Amino acid sequence: MSEQFASDNYAGICPEVMASLTQANAGFAAAYGEDDWTARASDRFRQIFETDCEVFFVFNGTAANALAMAALCQSYHSIICHEVGHVATDECGAPEFFSNGSKLLTARGEQGKLTAAAIEALITKRSDIHYPKPKVVSLTQATEVGTLYSLAELQAIRTVADRHQLKIHMDGARFANAIAALAVSPADLTWRSGVDVLCFGGTKNGMALGEAILFFDRSLAEDFAYRCKQAGQLASKMRYISAQLLGLIETDAWLHNARHANRCAAYLAEKMTQFPNLPIMFPRQANAVFVKMPPPMIQQLHDRGWHFYTFIGADGARLMCSWNTTFERIDEFVADVKDVVAQTGLAQASRDSDTAASYATL
Amino acid sequence: MSEQFASDNYAGICPEVMASLTQANAGFAAAYGEDDWTARASDRFRQIFETDCEVFFVFNGTAANALAMAALCQSYHSIICHEVGHVATDECGAPEFFSNGSKLLTARGEQGKLTAAAIEALITKRSDIHYPKPKVVSLTQATEVGTLYSLAELQAIRTVADRHQLKIHMDGARFANAIAALAVSPADLTWRSGVDVLCFGGTKNGMALGEAILFFDRSLAEDFAYRCKQAGQLASKMRYISAQLLGLIETDAWLHNARHANRCAAYLAEKMTQFPNLPIMFPRQANAVFVKMPPPMIQQLHDRGWHFYTFIGADGARLMCSWNTTFERIDEFVADVKDVVAQTGLAQASRDSDTAASYATL
Amino acid sequence: MSEQFASDNYAGICPEVMASLTQANAGFAAAYGEDDWTARASDRFRQIFETDCEVFFVFNGTAANALAMAALCQSYHSIICHEVGHVATDECGAPEFFSNGSKLLTARGEQGKLTAAAIEALITKRSDIHYPKPKVVSLTQATEVGTLYSLAELQAIRTVADRHQLKIHMDGARFANAIAALAVSPADLTWRSGVDVLCFGGTKNGMALGEAILFFDRSLAEDFAYRCKQAGQLASKMRYISAQLLGLIETDAWLHNARHANRCAAYLAEKMTQFPNLPIMFPRQANAVFVKMPPPMIQQLHDRGWHFYTFIGADGARLMCSWNTTFERIDEFVADVKDVVAQTGLAQASRDSDTAASYATL
Amino acid sequence: MSEQFASDNYAGICPEVMASLTQANAGFAAAYGEDDWTARASDRFRQIFETDCEVFFVFNGTAANALAMAALCQSYHSIICHEVGHVATDECGAPEFFSNGSKLLTARGEQGKLTAAAIEALITKRSDIHYPKPKVVSLTQATEVGTLYSLAELQAIRTVADRHQLKIHMDGARFANAIAALAVSPADLTWRSGVDVLCFGGTKNGMALGEAILFFDRSLAEDFAYRCKQAGQLASKMRYISAQLLGLIETDAWLHNARHANRCAAYLAEKMTQFPNLPIMFPRQANAVFVKMPPPMIQQLHDRGWHFYTFIGADGARLMCSWNTTFERIDEFVADVKDVVAQTGLAQASRDSDTAASYATL
Repeated sequence: MSEQFASDNYAGICPEVMASLTQANAGFAAAYGEDDWTARASDRFRQIFETDCEVFFVFNGTAANALAMAALCQSYHSIICHEVGHVATDECGAPEFFSNGSKLLTARGEQGKLTAAAIEALITKRSDIHYPKPKVVSLTQATEVGTLYSLAELQAIRTVADRHQLKIHMDGARFANAIAALAVSPADLTWRSGVDVLCFGGTKNGMALGEAILFFDRSLAEDFAYRCKQAGQLASKMRYISAQLLGLIETDAWLHNARHANRCAAYLAEKMTQFPNLPIMFPRQANAVFVKMPPPMIQQLHDRGWHFYTFIGADGARLMCSWNTTFERIDEFVADVKDVVAQTGLAQASRDSDTAASYATL
Repeated sequence: MSEQFASDNYAGICPEVMASLTQANAGFAAAYGEDDWTARASDRFRQIFETDCEVFFVFNGTAANALAMAALCQSYHSIICHEVGHVATDECGAPEFFSNGSKLLTARGEQGKLTAAAIEALITKRSDIHYPKPKVVSLTQATEVGTLYSLAELQAIRTVADRHQLKIHMDGARFANAIAALAVSPADLTWRSGVDVLCFGGTKNGMALGEAILFFDRSLAEDFAYRCKQAGQLASKMRYISAQLLGLIETDAWLHNARHANRCAAYLAEKMTQFPNLPIMFPRQANAVFVKMPPPMIQQLHDRGWHFYTFIGADGARLMCSWNTTFERIDEFVADVKDVVAQTGLAQASRDSDTAASYATL
Repeated sequence: MSEQFASDNYAGICPEVMASLTQANAGFAAAYGEDDWTARASDRFRQIFETDCEVFFVFNGTAANALAMAALCQSYHSIICHEVGHVATDECGAPEFFSNGSKLLTARGEQGKLTAAAIEALITKRSDIHYPKPKVVSLTQATEVGTLYSLAELQAIRTVADRHQLKIHMDGARFANAIAALAVSPADLTWRSGVDVLCFGGTKNGMALGEAILFFDRSLAEDFAYRCKQAGQLASKMRYISAQLLGLIETDAWLHNARHANRCAAYLAEKMTQFPNLPIMFPRQANAVFVKMPPPMIQQLHDRGWHFYTFIGADGARLMCSWNTTFERIDEFVADVKDVVAQTGLAQASRDSDTAASYATL
Repeated sequence: MSEQFASDNYAGICPEVMASLTQANAGFAAAYGEDDWTARASDRFRQIFETDCEVFFVFNGTAANALAMAALCQSYHSIICHEVGHVATDECGAPEFFSNGSKLLTARGEQGKLTAAAIEALITKRSDIHYPKPKVVSLTQATEVGTLYSLAELQAIRTVADRHQLKIHMDGARFANAIAALAVSPADLTWRSGVDVLCFGGTKNGMALGEAILFFDRSLAEDFAYRCKQAGQLASKMRYISAQLLGLIETDAWLHNARHANRCAAYLAEKMTQFPNLPIMFPRQANAVFVKMPPPMIQQLHDRGWHFYTFIGADGARLMCSWNTTFERIDEFVADVKDVVAQTGLAQASRDSDTAASYATL
């Protein structure tokens, strides 16, 4: 249970998904996506996103993002993303591998978000042949630091992208958390705001594994099924991915799970305000809370059995909530924090506002 | 139910695997293979194969084979396989993609099997720099046409491979069927016969998805986990793959399922002998029966709702049995064949032995 | 001098090219193709081919062909070529490397030529996702066995390509020899017959190194300069390639050289008719003569210092003529053949017409 | 002639190289490096470097560096280089393409040089599987900003590399300039200081094109010739590259040319000290002079016909000298600078030392 804040991929399969998985297990079904579950899940996505998009199901987020980006550019092109973008920092070079060499150009930006201005600066910085030509903007929604792009921010980015003929990819590993938090329609948050391709995350939101790739511009999906097959991402028994996704989106579990995770994070963030020397590093907008914390204190909490990742030079704690995080465990965690502060005297010094301010540019 | 003979990947999850999957779903677990299920499954493989091999779990067979082969050579090397080898004919170029350009050199051989002599002929055919240097032999066990390599055949291939410093990869999508049929130990059929890397199939033998890659020579597995990660084959919630595999191999279900499928195929093959004009194309040794059949007759059976693949110019029917094929359905199928023969007069001409003989070289 | 029949790439730089190279060496010039020589060579190509094509200069034929084909398809597509096609047999996997995994599908065809029918058979053989989708036809003109595609043959292939939306690539390593032999215009032999991209060979026709890639459909050349740069094929001092090409095509040396090589081959082929047991294997149409020859005889000629490649199981001699082959040396070679025949008794048995006939399908 | 300071690749072929090239053009020669010129050039390199290294000749520096680095790692590994490293900033993703996805990790460092400490910090920053494992350090000697690594600096880097099992690649596009400036032996500056592979530049030092790759650890060169062939870097008429290199290194032209270029740069740097408001940005150690210059002034000089590249946000002028730069032209350039300063008043403000200091970290 102590893994509760490590990552939303430490959590298990939620009941709705398990029910659908069990149901899908009856008898034989055509392979490679020719089954009914896959058809139904695809249609359901089209309904939810209010558009006749092309839908593909793959095994994980690494592949979903890398395949989608590879479909938007060639090897001698480049992809603009945030310097804390998961595709740049945590995929062991998967985007470069799937695209056969496309370079990731990273930009800075407050609260882990790219801005239209920063994107344009990167695009126009060089135009010579010795530098890979930018062709794609990759955004993460919710971002890696738990913040959210507003519709206005997305549309500003679309305007820049249009000016320079770039495509927009959205890494939606936690897309459900964004929808739950922003209370806008999936269509508004994607294609109506200029997103060309969305990777819709299932794994972190209650599935065993599985992600969907939605191409809102169908012409970009030409022969994409072949791409998936060649890259080892065509499940032979695809019903076991599509049924899980269907279980998630047909029952509203996807939003229910996300709302719960977001609420847990909000509750945790609120509780943490009692520790003025443990500042929240980024606005808590989705299901993550980032807390600046001295490394010895992080160690103490780890020693007490709390699993969570550190961030930014080991003095930030990333506390991630999931669909089955409980308020009880949050209370226990906060109690342990309190205890550590009391016993060790750590985090009792006056708040170092300078350092806190420096996170703003991430 | 009519999909029973289409492919073993039309079948569902077997009870033992489902039980393990359900059990694995309790609570939180560390991600990326740091969980107990993964450790237990790995250890169990080491026990079954009687050696301290390196074990990796990936999503599907396309990736398992392509990653394993890529680990054994560089892009300017070549891989020798049979001309009906699945890696050559049905992976949409995945081996070339994962290896960044390694060429597959195909050889002919009776009953879908490579021979030591054919391999050596390909190796020694050329030695100039304009031709990719052979570095890997890829064998499928059981083969794509349902036959089996004997220990002696494997050892003869190992001798040739040693003579020219090649590595041996075994595509074991139906490895369980081979073990069940040959009644030899997994160790004897692999590393004791010179296999360097085995892709152990789970999907076709009762799992939803998931394959294991076993490196018997651990030095070949150096940094292989990074390779998996970069190629989109590292499951974040890996327990859901490893628990399935554990359910399969801890309970003996893997052999039980395979034995059942093999028995069904034997039963079907025996029943088909009543049709002398529908000859069995390859010795029935594992869970597949290949029957030479006139295309109009194949059409009639398809029209009656029987799903199966055709093979070799559309006049061969591949009838694949799985862990949940039933003898009742086989009887029904045979009855339908009888009926079609009677009603249409198809396959009543005298057997064309010349054509049948020609399959021998596959 | 004994290398005269080995390959046209054993020959040196012809006078016109050397003159142009020397002239280009005066002073400084802008790098990466921004120089006058490159502009002039490009324009000259447009003039010769009577169309506003996109022109690129690269170092060698391996790269020219592989880059051009990679521009016409994606990694999960396939390229149809003849089974003796140089791209399939002698590039060490370069097409697969540059395209990141595109598969070469080889077809048979008489006289080393693809036919419209054989191409269509390969295209329509399969349409499932497990097989890379054909997107390109690659033709060699003159072919690897020294034969030529007629305009009618090219147009028939174009018709099939159109029917299935394939692009046509022409490997023109010996394009000049084809033009010289067929006495048609470069435009007729390429874009007017449906060729999308031509790799125009310079190395084999009197240059030190360098090839041109001509895109007749400019839309296919989008960002191609970036592709060249990334693939290590953008010469910084490009004038030294373009000036050579200009020296070749501005002076008519390209046709003059090719005509000479063709004439030498014709002369050699005619002389060889005196040996009825050393049959010519393919119609002599360009600058190569293929002679069926017993391996011991080939060895004898090699021992006397004649360099040439063998072909098809070592019993074929490929005798290649170049811009500076001399008739004197041909006479000496033929005299040596005569001598070997007389001394050894080799090739005095009656002609084996069956074997000769079998070459027809190549 | 106004291109004199643009780049050393604007210069032509030096007399010694041209003489060798002309001489190599006599008659026929075996293809693909089986000729005498290639053997002689290889042996000469072994003599100069006092070791039995493996030597390969390729067309250009992009390929030389990318192929060499690809030989030292796998796609899921990473390469550490300086943030102004040419391989990172000016190769359009070639390293990523040739290696199939290896990531470049860039470090900062004073005067364009990596330090042992910065390298170790990058190596030890992360050790999880989601981040490509560092395997190679790539150094440029002379660096992109015209500075030089001392033997001690190289040895310190070797110590760190050994501690973490990394290989060292040296981009020696201007290696001759480094040798000329440091007055140490080629052996001392490379393998005796721990360099595993050197890319020895020819193009920028008086050749038309061509680079050599020297593997001091021969085991790292296994099958490297196949790698070159597959990647389009095996010249069929290789004598035209090797003869040029031989002309360069057999005659001492390589050092003579480099010494001249270095002297020109020293002369130019000295002359520029008369403009206190146009500070030299990096110590002038090889053949480049970097001058901080207001953009309008750069424009004025460009308008007067002087070609040179700008650097760092357009307010730095990179003045590169080559083997045929003349002192007369340097004087003319300096006179024009003086004139522009006088006429426009640009660069007459007091020197902005803060900004100048900021270059130190590059």
